[in-house]
Order: sequence, then C-alpha cells, then structure tokens
Amino acid sequence: MTYVNAGTLGTLPGKRDELVSRLTQRNDRLRELGCTAYEVGVNEDEPETVFVVELWESAAAHQASLRQPDVMAAIADARPLLDGRFGGFRFEVVGSPLRGD
Amino acid sequence: MTYVNAGTLGTLPGKRDELVSRLTQRNDRLRELGCTAYEVGVNEDEPETVFVVELWESAAAHQASLRQPDVMAAIADARPLLDGRFGGFRFEVVGSPLRGD
Repeated sequence: MTYVNAGTLGTLPGKRDELVSRLTQRNDRLRELGCTAYEVGVNEDEPETVFVVELWESAAAHQASLRQPDVMAAIADARPLLDGRFGGFRFEVVGSPLRGD
Repeated sequence: MTYVNAGTLGTLPGKRDELVSRLTQRNDRLRELGCTAYEVGVNEDEPETVFVVELWESAAAHQASLRQPDVMAAIADARPLLDGRFGGFRFEVVGSPLRGD
C-alpha cells in the first residue's frame, strides 16, 4: 500500500535554500529504495521552512530507507541547517479520485 | 510551478470511511482542472482523520478549482461528516531528487 510522508522542516535563518538544494540533488538511490515521488518546496509565507511530500511503495520501504547508511549520512549532513521544528503527517493511501480506486 | 496541498480533515466519530469513499470516487473533472495527483488515506493512529495530498499544475489552478460549482457542491455535501479540525500545509514545488531538478 502506498505510504505518504508529508513533512515540514524548520531551518535556521538563511539556510532554507541550502537545504532545498541538498534535498533536490539527483539521488537515484531513493527510487531503488521504493520512493515513487519526492517533491520539495517552499511557501513564501514561511521563509524558514522546507516542505516535502514523499510517496513510498510501503511504510516498510520508507522505514528501511531511514536505516540505510547513505540516507542516514545525508540526514546527519543536513542537521546543522535545521532549527528543530519538525511537522507534518504520514498515512497509508486508500484511493484517489483520479484513479477511482 | 507544481503546487502541493497536503491536508488533514477531522471527521465526526464513525464518519471517516464515508468521507474516504466520497473523496475516492472517480472524478475526471479534477484532472481537467489541473490536478495531477490526489492521494487519499488514513492512519490507524488517528482513526477520525482523513489525509489528502494533492498536486496541482499551479496554485492558480488549485484556487480556481475551489470556485467551480461542482467542486463547491462536493465540499458542501461532505461538510456534515466533518468535525471542523483542518490541518496541513501548502507549498510550491522547487525540485525533486528523483528528477534532480
């Protein structure tokens, strides 16, 4: 069942764009790990927040990705840009009006 | 620029699945209006919440869709199922590690 991680990442002042550029660097590993969509974005009303929406083949695939050494290293690399504000939600997809399932 | 609406809808006790079934009914109008993805889901940790992630061709397309009579009617029809808790966030997509843009 497709699994969605919709998250917000608070950044330190002036660090938003650096985090965006890291998160949007080409990374084919994610698809190998079961990520089917990963959208990174901003909202000018919240200048020190980066937004992500990720779709994964399953919750298990998402969880397993977080235990991969290269993914853990990327997260650790980005941590100095973050101010500790984390938000968002996660859910299992049950259908879509675009598919009618 | 792709626009994301990631939202949570609080439902009255026992009404979650009815809202899910309405939101997942096939609706080709949404694609005509510029919706490129619309995922509906649940999280067993929050049994009275429905989660949605929508991708739109632009913020303007999303805004315009909310002024369409049939979309407004569908929202009005669903309102009796809701308990007034609304959450989530919206953002403009700036890139993806799956595309490297």
